[in-house]
Amino acid sequence: MKKDYSKSAIELHKKYKGKLSTVSLAKLQNKDDLSVLYTPGVAAVSLAIAKDKKLARVLTMKGRTIAVVTDGSAVLGLGNIGPEAALPVMEGKSVLFKEFGGLDSVPIVLGTQNVEEIISIVKAISPGFAGINLEDISAPRCFEIESRLIEELDIPVMHDDQHGTAIVVLAALINSLKITKKKAEDVKVVISGAGAASTATLKLLLKAGVKPKNVLILDSKGIIHIKREDLNNEKINLCKLSNGKHEGGDLEKALIGADVFIGMSMGNILKKEWVETMNDNPIIFALANPVSEISYEDALKTKAKVIGTGRSDHPNQINNVLAFPGVFRGAIDSGAKRITDKMKIAAAHAIASLVSKVELSKGIIIPDPFNKKVAKSVAAAVAKAK
Amino acid sequence: MKKDYSKSAIELHKKYKGKLSTVSLAKLQNKDDLSVLYTPGVAAVSLAIAKDKKLARVLTMKGRTIAVVTDGSAVLGLGNIGPEAALPVMEGKSVLFKEFGGLDSVPIVLGTQNVEEIISIVKAISPGFAGINLEDISAPRCFEIESRLIEELDIPVMHDDQHGTAIVVLAALINSLKITKKKAEDVKVVISGAGAASTATLKLLLKAGVKPKNVLILDSKGIIHIKREDLNNEKINLCKLSNGKHEGGDLEKALIGADVFIGMSMGNILKKEWVETMNDNPIIFALANPVSEISYEDALKTKAKVIGTGRSDHPNQINNVLAFPGVFRGAIDSGAKRITDKMKIAAAHAIASLVSKVELSKGIIIPDPFNKKVAKSVAAAVAKAK
Repeated sequence: MKKDYSKSAIELHKKYKGKLSTVSLAKLQNKDDLSVLYTPGVAAVSLAIAKDKKLARVLTMKGRTIAVVTDGSAVLGLGNIGPEAALPVMEGKSVLFKEFGGLDSVPIVLGTQNVEEIISIVKAISPGFAGINLEDISAPRCFEIESRLIEELDIPVMHDDQHGTAIVVLAALINSLKITKKKAEDVKVVISGAGAASTATLKLLLKAGVKPKNVLILDSKGIIHIKREDLNNEKINLCKLSNGKHEGGDLEKALIGADVFIGMSMGNILKKEWVETMNDNPIIFALANPVSEISYEDALKTKAKVIGTGRSDHPNQINNVLAFPGVFRGAIDSGAKRITDKMKIAAAHAIASLVSKVELSKGIIIPDPFNKKVAKSVAAAVAKAK
Repeated sequence: MKKDYSKSAIELHKKYKGKLSTVSLAKLQNKDDLSVLYTPGVAAVSLAIAKDKKLARVLTMKGRTIAVVTDGSAVLGLGNIGPEAALPVMEGKSVLFKEFGGLDSVPIVLGTQNVEEIISIVKAISPGFAGINLEDISAPRCFEIESRLIEELDIPVMHDDQHGTAIVVLAALINSLKITKKKAEDVKVVISGAGAASTATLKLLLKAGVKPKNVLILDSKGIIHIKREDLNNEKINLCKLSNGKHEGGDLEKALIGADVFIGMSMGNILKKEWVETMNDNPIIFALANPVSEISYEDALKTKAKVIGTGRSDHPNQINNVLAFPGVFRGAIDSGAKRITDKMKIAAAHAIASLVSKVELSKGIIIPDPFNKKVAKSVAAAVAKAK
């Protein structure tokens, strides 16, 4: 039986009133301390920055603090539950930034879901931050918010639901291809789901060598192809990035002869017998959470060579925490103004390379999230790729 | 010679990259911890709040975290130096909230000085916070920003430059009147300066018993009176709250027969010989910082009975830190939606009462900021006054 963490989560959050706290790095015990941390001494620090704004990066928390920004519109799999209900997730994210990336981080939960308002608010608060992690903002709004902020700000901005997921999927795929002795250029990939994470994953896989003609991406209506008349602009764009033969059809059809299934959609949509129609040694990433596209137990009964999941209670959890702390850390340490595709691909290779040749097996395609080397290796690779 | 903290302040801020940091209150050492702090467990916390938003106060940092918001337009005495340069001051303020009030706190430094934008940004980020401390925002913009936010939000909002100062001045006055055996109802008060802090101080003194007819308030052009043609709306309003006889004139004239001088203006404007024209046992609060209206050494040579300053290197420092941590703490602990005048007056009396009858003397009219009882007493008094 799966472990239920609900009760202990409620208890812990009640005990601490959430979990993120602020502290002083310097001691404050007497008037001298006060005069250095605050007035009158702090005036010298403010004046130095007033003369040269760049000094804020070395003299204030701006040099090491990420804003985790959400509007609460697409929180976990819970949907549009609003800013207050999103806060526990954002506090958690901030804790992960600190524990894994050594970065300070502050949740900013917004009481507006208007795209223009969100963009101008994030721009307005940006002077205090080293980077902006957008989180749990629904598609298609997340695309415009992220692209505009990347364009208009000179600090790294990343929507983690898109790119954090894409990076870890790519890392998992890199190692899965080693096990199955296949090449990115050759594999046929089926992506179930056409939301933010799927779209970013598709784009990153293409940058990493997968061919557009070899990819099929599906939404709830089936394979996305140019003749469909129900496509929004984002999905029309996906047609150019996939489906070279302009095929239509459902998931069952899409899977025939496929090498890789990437599920980012909903639970229980992948049947065991469909896996059998895939190419030899198929790779199955069933990432819907908490209910996977195919249960881990069922997947084990198929010919799948590698199985990745979205759950911490199964092997090979495709977990964003492997990526975002190191990605931001590397971008900030190197003074990068943007997180580029080159940096994301470098991050994926860094994650993949932490599974040694000896360990690499169908049960171990990605490192454990508590492997202390992960964030450091990712940060170094991202900084180098700047 | 006055101690110069500039060098040690720069060194400390360079060492720590500022001074405010974020930490996890709960341990994160293994996958079980991760499942409770973050997914999947955190979903239960989010769902509980989605059903009842009020639970955010007990299950998240919202219940204990203050946003310290500035636009960098009036930072210390340094003027309009912008958000980055304001950040060291705001980090300091956040540290004081934690160390003195036990409240977590996050600096939000804004890259806009537009009143409407600031109001809508603060409203948008408010779902994540227990209270809003406005800081170092220039007059008259600060008045509208504060009053609109108080009106439109259901969490405590206070512009500390105004009300924190007013509360501590009132506390100091309460004890000074005990020493000089005078009553608030009877004293003639001269306030030098007509900015945000002076205005709030005037209003609070009136609520505490000082008579409008007994107060003169001066700007750089002299006593404010209704016949002057250079007054903006804020200053026209001050005419109704002061100067019963519609007197004109300069500071020298204003001081004749006055019992209390409150300086919130600029350095070296109060001459020793003018103090001699005041009523017997005059009270001098020379709060301009770092250069006082009259130097402490010069004030000692006059007949002044009580001298208060704005500097930590002299006795009787009128220091906001005596007020704001306890004021917010009391308001939040009691679930107050606003910080009322009644609560501010209660805070002033709580601060004043911490100087015992034995201690009370011209050298000790207010408690030491490191007196651990201050914030607790203030918080209790504020909560009781709700």
